[in-house]
Amino acid sequence: MVKTSDLIAEFLKNKKIDTAFGIIGSANSHIFDSISKLGYTRIINVHNEQAAVLAMGAYYRASGKLSVSLVTAGAGATNAVTGVVSNWADSIPGLIISGQENYNYVSTQEHLRMYGTQGLNMAKMVSEVTKQAIAFTDDMDIQDSLESLHAITISGRPGPCWLDIPMNLQAKMVKKHDWIKCDIFSIKNNGIDVEPIIKSINNSKRPIIVGGHGVRLSGSKDKFRQVINTLKIPTLLTWSGIDLLDNNNPNFFGRFGLYGQRAANFAVQNADLVIVLGSRLALPQVGYDFSQFARDAKIIVVDIDNSELTKYNVNYIVADCKDVIEKLMDASYKIEGYKEEWVNYCNQLKIKYPWVEEKIHKDNGYINSYKFMDRLSDHLKDNHIIVTDMGTALLSGHQAIKLGPNQTMFTSLGLGEMGYGLPAALGAALACPDKPVLCLNCDGGMMLNLQEAHTIIENNLPVKVVIFNNDGYLMIKHTQKMLFKNHYVNVDKKTGVGLPDFKKLMPAFGYNYYELKSWDNFDVIMESFLNDPNPSSLEVFMDPEQDFVPKVKGVLREDGSIFPPPIEEMSPLLSLETVEKEMIVGISEKSKQIKR
Amino acid sequence: MVKTSDLIAEFLKNKKIDTAFGIIGSANSHIFDSISKLGYTRIINVHNEQAAVLAMGAYYRASGKLSVSLVTAGAGATNAVTGVVSNWADSIPGLIISGQENYNYVSTQEHLRMYGTQGLNMAKMVSEVTKQAIAFTDDMDIQDSLESLHAITISGRPGPCWLDIPMNLQAKMVKKHDWIKCDIFSIKNNGIDVEPIIKSINNSKRPIIVGGHGVRLSGSKDKFRQVINTLKIPTLLTWSGIDLLDNNNPNFFGRFGLYGQRAANFAVQNADLVIVLGSRLALPQVGYDFSQFARDAKIIVVDIDNSELTKYNVNYIVADCKDVIEKLMDASYKIEGYKEEWVNYCNQLKIKYPWVEEKIHKDNGYINSYKFMDRLSDHLKDNHIIVTDMGTALLSGHQAIKLGPNQTMFTSLGLGEMGYGLPAALGAALACPDKPVLCLNCDGGMMLNLQEAHTIIENNLPVKVVIFNNDGYLMIKHTQKMLFKNHYVNVDKKTGVGLPDFKKLMPAFGYNYYELKSWDNFDVIMESFLNDPNPSSLEVFMDPEQDFVPKVKGVLREDGSIFPPPIEEMSPLLSLETVEKEMIVGISEKSKQIKR
Repeated sequence: MVKTSDLIAEFLKNKKIDTAFGIIGSANSHIFDSISKLGYTRIINVHNEQAAVLAMGAYYRASGKLSVSLVTAGAGATNAVTGVVSNWADSIPGLIISGQENYNYVSTQEHLRMYGTQGLNMAKMVSEVTKQAIAFTDDMDIQDSLESLHAITISGRPGPCWLDIPMNLQAKMVKKHDWIKCDIFSIKNNGIDVEPIIKSINNSKRPIIVGGHGVRLSGSKDKFRQVINTLKIPTLLTWSGIDLLDNNNPNFFGRFGLYGQRAANFAVQNADLVIVLGSRLALPQVGYDFSQFARDAKIIVVDIDNSELTKYNVNYIVADCKDVIEKLMDASYKIEGYKEEWVNYCNQLKIKYPWVEEKIHKDNGYINSYKFMDRLSDHLKDNHIIVTDMGTALLSGHQAIKLGPNQTMFTSLGLGEMGYGLPAALGAALACPDKPVLCLNCDGGMMLNLQEAHTIIENNLPVKVVIFNNDGYLMIKHTQKMLFKNHYVNVDKKTGVGLPDFKKLMPAFGYNYYELKSWDNFDVIMESFLNDPNPSSLEVFMDPEQDFVPKVKGVLREDGSIFPPPIEEMSPLLSLETVEKEMIVGISEKSKQIKR
Repeated sequence: MVKTSDLIAEFLKNKKIDTAFGIIGSANSHIFDSISKLGYTRIINVHNEQAAVLAMGAYYRASGKLSVSLVTAGAGATNAVTGVVSNWADSIPGLIISGQENYNYVSTQEHLRMYGTQGLNMAKMVSEVTKQAIAFTDDMDIQDSLESLHAITISGRPGPCWLDIPMNLQAKMVKKHDWIKCDIFSIKNNGIDVEPIIKSINNSKRPIIVGGHGVRLSGSKDKFRQVINTLKIPTLLTWSGIDLLDNNNPNFFGRFGLYGQRAANFAVQNADLVIVLGSRLALPQVGYDFSQFARDAKIIVVDIDNSELTKYNVNYIVADCKDVIEKLMDASYKIEGYKEEWVNYCNQLKIKYPWVEEKIHKDNGYINSYKFMDRLSDHLKDNHIIVTDMGTALLSGHQAIKLGPNQTMFTSLGLGEMGYGLPAALGAALACPDKPVLCLNCDGGMMLNLQEAHTIIENNLPVKVVIFNNDGYLMIKHTQKMLFKNHYVNVDKKTGVGLPDFKKLMPAFGYNYYELKSWDNFDVIMESFLNDPNPSSLEVFMDPEQDFVPKVKGVLREDGSIFPPPIEEMSPLLSLETVEKEMIVGISEKSKQIKR
């Protein structure tokens, strides 16, 4: 007979899960004890369970290695919910194991507000935001349950799974049997026919390939690069696929979307064929009026998730990206000709519309965050991991940063929760101790998981944290400018959202502190900051009213109404003549209605 | 036609809801804007939505005034879940209003992982932990929805309600009609018959009255005092009812429970009648073997919630406490005689078993937290509000503090989440600007809502924060001592849970810092600390291994097995002879089995 919690520890070892994130409580203490006694998996103690699940996700994003979250009953479990939804939205696998009150309370007190002392039905609460959530009962088999959740979390379109296990069942002695590995569900790839893609490419004059998150998730980053370099088709990346290509790759033409780059948006909008590999084409990518997206193009989307297929009226191929990429590579000899004219057009766009434009990313006594990203890129190490929080860090980071072939960059894009940055940096630094980790954060976003600033220190992780000081919530200021005629409410110091003095706070945690108020010593400061052997923070003072541009935003019709324009119409708006000149497919009727 | 969000703002004004807690996002910006334009309700910006809901609950607990939480879509909403469950468990009313993606996404994308950009089905997620959660749709009436949620949240056994409203529906222009107030559901009190209670008292030799949270919730604190002073029956309080009586009231004999006081536990265990007013008799009160609780007594429980009635085999009266208390007062003339012998017995207990005992609350070079509470009591202001976090703050606070008639004290008892202290102090200080607020916290508990240390500063609230430094998670250390033979895992600095240097961190936030390492200057330090006009913190260095005693804990049988003893058997265990002497009802068979 073996103690159930010992089997949990053994399972982690079997699966080579070397790291767990969590906080101990009475209700999960058996699991902590067993893991510690076995001595295989280290447990990183975070300071709010929300961060445990986010760090678990980042650990996976940075390294491809699975980890787990260990949370106790009650609030330990409910604190984890945001992390679960974040990983759910971004298709990140992982297992959350929560303690629960003793089983006799669970089985008899469901009608009460709380089971036993602190219990509630967690499996039910997270059932819609996990691939599977098991409320472990007296007659279940722990080995089979764990194997099954492990298979499910990484199968198909990945996502978190949850195991809720009562305290007394953790301590229960059970008969151990052989571990029976579950089949990982995978889409049969022998049926995949890439001929229609090949044919479409051959029939196309202006093809675009889009690389998305699914490429990374399917573990085919290298193969993706190989196929792009072979096909030599202009390629764009989504934000979740931001690091799939070296930005110097001649086939790479940028990142499109509402906060995309002008060149990339013109490219995708002028395509006659868009082949999307592993992206669900989220709203921030394609805009609010899908009929205007790549409107002259045949769109082929490779997605592993059946449930996405009804979202748009495009050509879906339900498949694992990896299989499609491999088949495309095999069939690449069938591609006829090089689309020189189209590639030249795209190259012209690249030259005409640089990512950072002097005209709109002005110097006005503050540090412009786009210029910052541009110049930061030159200081990054070859193997840097960059994680971002939301707001400025997210937008200017993803719009303007240039990435090399070995750099990694990610953030939470589906849920997009403020507070992602610090736990993400924690997870990344633990996953890849040999790589430098840079966290791009903002004064507002620092706060929501501020406690993890300490966890980074406590674990001696030389993480570098950039804090953009923009006096509050800059994205919402812009929302209020647009919707409420500049009527600011709860967005900055004046309207009730003051933030701490990070110059005092970061050193108190144990960070070295640098600040950037002008460009004068940028290179020197940046080198000192990035090469500081200790955890360090750099506060960047930017214009608290800085625009996030270019941006596709609702525009005024001549009649005064507002409508979502096609994504080639980025603000600040170009002249109609310029847009007309760039649009090979012709301008949209909507473009003509815009008051410029 | 009126904008829907303006109606929300108007509703808040109609209900005299002067305070909201929240964080702005795009998806709730219309509501913020309307509230600000109307100018009635102030919005307090917290730094994680978890704290918004906890502060909302504390606002109510401190003042009896309803407030609301305003959270945005996605993570704004999921961050709020822990606060919701906390208020749900402790029967605290309040309304959470969340933003949601535009309705066209909600209505068409339920099969996708996320609606629109950041949307998920929040109403469903919280349906089991709220009294009602409405996913607002296109054809609902906002005025009726708000009125109905308002009535539901405060009716019967209170609890939080949730309104999830899509962004575009917030902005929608609708026809306004008269506000139609919903009937507050209340249990008919004309049917309540207190005769059986009166008769039971008259037949009883050793009656005990227990005052619980329901007394406060029903707004009958004053009437409760009146009836106790009239009936002169020995009265005990639950932890949620801790401030119902002046601790100098001659009828007050303490707080019973697993972490109760010996005298109180002896008293309730020797009663022949226990009349429970407004308590669900949670496990920490009655112990893990209910058959041993007040085993010689007739138990009458007044509870407003039908669903609790099957929990124990006792005499339930389904009623609002207030009605029962009023009727008891009216019928008090029918009470025959004063139970002098019983009162004398209880008074003897009080003398023999003081709350703080030199023998078990030893001085060993550290500040013992029980002695701290005892001595702190003498420094409290007449109208102090005391809130606690968990662990040391909770246990020694509730075991050893002495309260005066105008002092208020509360914490989260149902969910018992670490991190409650700071948002609770925030809510209390905003609710009662004229009262001093003291937050009893611990190094571990400080972390989970650390960001709110800043919110307190930002709002210029002169909150006082006591931080017990016990090197980590002291309660769990004791769990590990008991269950795992002192094998510590993830509970202190040595095992991976180091905590920040609060001497640096608190001043960096803007708190004055005091420390207590010996008793030498206790009174001077305490006076300076409590009278400091600024937000201040006091770090108390206690024994990182200090026991929480007395405590009812699992005890060893002669045969080596462990069982839950009756609650008169508090550890450190008294001799069998002593227990025998105190137990009028005779000792339990279980007492005889204990190896002492």
